Amino acid sequence: EITEQLIAFFQKKPLLGKRVLITAGPTFEAIDPVRGITNRSSGKMGFAIARAALEAGAQVHLVAGPCDLTTPLEATGKITRTNVVSAKEMHAATMQSVDCDIFFAVAAVADWGIAKPAKEKMKRQGKQAPILEFVANPDILADLAKTVKTKGGKPHPYCVGFAAESTDLQKHAEEKRKRKGIPMVVGNIGPDTFGSDLNQLLIIDESGSKKIAKAEKLQLARQLIQLVAKKI
Amino acid sequence: EITEQLIAFFQKKPLLGKRVLITAGPTFEAIDPVRGITNRSSGKMGFAIARAALEAGAQVHLVAGPCDLTTPLEATGKITRTNVVSAKEMHAATMQSVDCDIFFAVAAVADWGIAKPAKEKMKRQGKQAPILEFVANPDILADLAKTVKTKGGKPHPYCVGFAAESTDLQKHAEEKRKRKGIPMVVGNIGPDTFGSDLNQLLIIDESGSKKIAKAEKLQLARQLIQLVAKKI
Repeated sequence: EITEQLIAFFQKKPLLGKRVLITAGPTFEAIDPVRGITNRSSGKMGFAIARAALEAGAQVHLVAGPCDLTTPLEATGKITRTNVVSAKEMHAATMQSVDCDIFFAVAAVADWGIAKPAKEKMKRQGKQAPILEFVANPDILADLAKTVKTKGGKPHPYCVGFAAESTDLQKHAEEKRKRKGIPMVVGNIGPDTFGSDLNQLLIIDESGSKKIAKAEKLQLARQLIQLVAKKI
Repeated sequence: EITEQLIAFFQKKPLLGKRVLITAGPTFEAIDPVRGITNRSSGKMGFAIARAALEAGAQVHLVAGPCDLTTPLEATGKITRTNVVSAKEMHAATMQSVDCDIFFAVAAVADWGIAKPAKEKMKRQGKQAPILEFVANPDILADLAKTVKTKGGKPHPYCVGFAAESTDLQKHAEEKRKRKGIPMVVGNIGPDTFGSDLNQLLIIDESGSKKIAKAEKLQLARQLIQLVAKKI
C-alpha cells in the first residue's frame, strides 16, 4: 500500500480536481435467495481504471457489483465505493452520482432481470424445468448519457462505454458508440480477458480507432486515463 | 502456510490412510460465452472440510467450482484439486473418483443447465426478453450414492450431503437424507452463511439431529470430520 501510494504520487496529474464515476464488475440478478444470473466479469479492469484515475489526481466514485477486489488507494481518502448487487441497484447508485467530469461504464451489467424472484429457494420438481420470466433492466450508460450537457464546447460528463464482444469487436463497438450516443467506446474481447490480469484494448472515438497492445490492466488503464484526460 | 502446517500436524489423525472426496463451491451454467446462472456459494465450507480432512491425515480430492480460494495445505502433497465450471463437469470429475472412503457433497450444484448455450454473446433485442430452455443436470450425490457398497457392515463410501435451505431446515434436510439414500445430511441456512467465514450446522443422521453452534467454518469442519471419522 505504501509502495502503491508512492507510485501513485509520481504519476502525471491531469485529472486534479476532476470527478470520475466508474461502474465495475458483474451484476447478479436473483432468481431466488440462492441462485442468480451473472457473468464472468471479475471487476479487475474497472478497479484498474479507478486506481489510474486516483493516481492522475481525480476524486473517484466506484460503483461495484459483487466481486472480491480491494478498493484501490483507499488511504488517499479520494475514493468512495458503493457496493451493489443487481443492475437496478447499480443504476440507482450511478444516477445519484451523475454530477461528474468523466463516466466510465466498465461494469458488465445484465440486460435482463428476473420478473419475480422467488422469496424461498426453489425446490427441484423432478425433471420439470423452471420457467423464468425476464424484464429488461434499465440502461445505465444510455440514461446517464441523456444527462450530458455541453461545457466549453465539450460533452460533460465525458462518457466512456465498454464493449465485451466474442466476435466483430470493431463493428459492435462502433455501433454501441452511436446507439448510446457517447463519444468513446473501449472494446475488449470478453471471454479472453475475464478474470485475467492482462487485456488488450480497442479505443473508438469520433476520430477513428486505436489499438492499445496487450498489457497488464493497470498499464492499459493508465494509458486510457491519459487519453481521456486530453478530451475534457 | 508453515503455521498452518504446524497446526495441521498437531490435530488428531483419525483419517490416516483414508481417501476423502469433496465437492465445493458453486457451479456456473453458461447461457452464452459471457453470461451464466450461478449461486451464492463461496466454496469456503467445502475448502474448510478439505483442510480439516488433511489435518486428520486423509488423502483428499477436492472438486471445485469457480471460486478464488487457494488450495489448502498444498505443500503436504496429499491434496489433488480439479477445477470445474458446470454441474456436468463436476459430475464427471466426481464419478471418476468414487473409489474413496468418505464423500462430502458440499458444492451448491445447479439443478438445471441451459439446453443450448449460445456460441456468441447474445445481443440485447430491444425490450424483447430472451427465452431460456433448461435441462435437468445429473444428480451427483444420488449417482455417487448408487455406487455405495457395504464394507464391514458399514456403507462405503460414507456419503455426507449438504442442504442449504431458506426455511424449514430440519424438515428439508431430513427429506434430502432419505431421498438421496445417504446416512448423513448437514444443514446450514444458506443465505446467512454464503461468503461468510462463520456458519452454524445441523447434523442429521439415522440417530437423530445435532446442532453445532455458530463458529468459524474451519472449527465446524474439524468437529464434523471427527464425527464422521467415528462412522467409518
